[in-house]
Amino acid sequence: MVLVLSPVISFKPTHRTKGRCYVTAKPLHFPSRYTGPTVADVGERAVTLAIQRMAPSSRNGDDAAVLATPAPNTRTVVSTDVLVEGRHFSLDWSSAEEVGRKAIVQNFADIEAMGARPIAALLGLTMPGHTPLNFVQRLIAGMWDKTLQHNSELVGGDLARADTLIVSITAIGILGGSSPALTLDRARAGQRLVASGPIGYSAAGLALLRHYGRASVPAGFAPLIDAHCAPTLIPGRGVIARATGATAMTDNSDGLIVDLTTMARRSNVRIDLDSAAITPDSLLRKAGDHLGIDPWSWVLTGGEDHTLLATTTSDAPSGFRTIGRVHRTHAAAHVTIDGCHPTYTAGWESF
Amino acid sequence: MVLVLSPVISFKPTHRTKGRCYVTAKPLHFPSRYTGPTVADVGERAVTLAIQRMAPSSRNGDDAAVLATPAPNTRTVVSTDVLVEGRHFSLDWSSAEEVGRKAIVQNFADIEAMGARPIAALLGLTMPGHTPLNFVQRLIAGMWDKTLQHNSELVGGDLARADTLIVSITAIGILGGSSPALTLDRARAGQRLVASGPIGYSAAGLALLRHYGRASVPAGFAPLIDAHCAPTLIPGRGVIARATGATAMTDNSDGLIVDLTTMARRSNVRIDLDSAAITPDSLLRKAGDHLGIDPWSWVLTGGEDHTLLATTTSDAPSGFRTIGRVHRTHAAAHVTIDGCHPTYTAGWESF
Repeated sequence: MVLVLSPVISFKPTHRTKGRCYVTAKPLHFPSRYTGPTVADVGERAVTLAIQRMAPSSRNGDDAAVLATPAPNTRTVVSTDVLVEGRHFSLDWSSAEEVGRKAIVQNFADIEAMGARPIAALLGLTMPGHTPLNFVQRLIAGMWDKTLQHNSELVGGDLARADTLIVSITAIGILGGSSPALTLDRARAGQRLVASGPIGYSAAGLALLRHYGRASVPAGFAPLIDAHCAPTLIPGRGVIARATGATAMTDNSDGLIVDLTTMARRSNVRIDLDSAAITPDSLLRKAGDHLGIDPWSWVLTGGEDHTLLATTTSDAPSGFRTIGRVHRTHAAAHVTIDGCHPTYTAGWESF
Repeated sequence: MVLVLSPVISFKPTHRTKGRCYVTAKPLHFPSRYTGPTVADVGERAVTLAIQRMAPSSRNGDDAAVLATPAPNTRTVVSTDVLVEGRHFSLDWSSAEEVGRKAIVQNFADIEAMGARPIAALLGLTMPGHTPLNFVQRLIAGMWDKTLQHNSELVGGDLARADTLIVSITAIGILGGSSPALTLDRARAGQRLVASGPIGYSAAGLALLRHYGRASVPAGFAPLIDAHCAPTLIPGRGVIARATGATAMTDNSDGLIVDLTTMARRSNVRIDLDSAAITPDSLLRKAGDHLGIDPWSWVLTGGEDHTLLATTTSDAPSGFRTIGRVHRTHAAAHVTIDGCHPTYTAGWESF
């Protein structure tokens, strides 16, 4: 039987501007808590075995991983994200566990954003020969932690040596039932825009980390630091939203205005944010005061919160709050705040 | 409905020794035929659009790609492989198209080696800012070419900037029917070992390229050069082998002895190669004479041919030839040639 794939491509066109780019010294320096033998010392086989011990499995090491027979009337959903040390994360302030957790959350958010449930992850890991083995073990421990939380599993991967530490994750999810996925082109005038999770916290956390360094961030900002170094994704939020009437969804990865602009353009609608619903809370304002930065810039351009953003005709689904409305489009402006052009519109740019 | 994933992990334990490792100068130099604006010049959005034009699709740019509803009684098979410039390929002799084709073949071989059919690929691409856009276009053209040949498709990806050019592919396949996948642990005493494709050609090609450079390789060695720079995988060979009684399968990626040793150990059998069936042909012998290298070393340790190696109780499936027998194991020796210990046993080591 020949299955014909529906022609789908998910390279994400974005409208990013140069923003977040860490600068790291070369060669990559691992903090002193990562000690002991390096991957070059122990060799690939030992690294592989260590990974299998950290993410145990009864069936391992084959050419490919065979997933379980899917329930009838389900479709597979796939997405991939590459995290480069010095650009998407920094060992200057993130622990190995946090990098592992973030890599999984970031990818699973893309699966949830389709209204699907993550079931598996694959890891492509490139690293320098001097990478301590216990760094790899802690990285995998963080991934294992998050995959477990999603009733999911690390089902395979590949290791390679390179000067740069790069964590590539492919997430695989299951979309149940025959109703459409929550694609970017299904926002409709009259719907409400709902969100599940913080907006702007990750960017504020990064700004604090860059200014103070991890050890010196003033007390009380832990929620912002955590939002950046180990963002949270509550399992099933995307599935619940789809089950209760959401039609379009994405996650706040590149910046609120950027991500909503993509949705609005794709759906040919205008999305109007309610300023009262996204106004910086006391914690963001306090961080802004500390750094002399307008916290609205974090809310509107920060991204990386991986907060789910959906449009729905129904009430806000469980765990979501209303932050705006979808309107017919009248002009070039696709995203507005209280009907006006946003003050900040930038976002992430890879090159 | 909650689907429980069968616990599978496919990090591939190998017994590799340091062997093939290209050395490249930094920063990465692109041959002069890759000209025009760089990815840093045009920005991520333009690169993304260029990729979508090279691998066209009617539905693009969402958070994740939704695959077609699978046929009843099928399972999804997934695998990932990372190709690092300077280690797994070199722009000194491979064109962008060849790198793209090789990346797909190498990953699809892992899917075929389970007896499954590749249906989709995801690309994680990291590259320096000075990468010419037309290099990316040619890379994608090579991938498109190969995915099309397999009735498959490039369904998504992610781009990031890094000093190293790294091509990460995740391949997704469909395993039809309820019979088991062709795992490494299902070789049985009494079976024949069969192979589809050349053995040792890729390693011989690499040796010629390193010695002469692409432009100066003596005439007549094109099949060896092609085997290295753009290996071939005939679509459906793995599916055919599974349908006609093969039980275990892998591909010759790390070296014949290494890959068969993994299978033999996992199945607790001895695999005895028939020297007459794998003896270097006239082309390999000629290359060996040119370089003063024993061509048997290419056959036994070369790898990267991505030739499918299967065990079956039936006759050799269409497109396969018999190259050995599976026996009960009596001692530590798991792979023998005419009953004797192989002369060469090394293989690929990542670190």
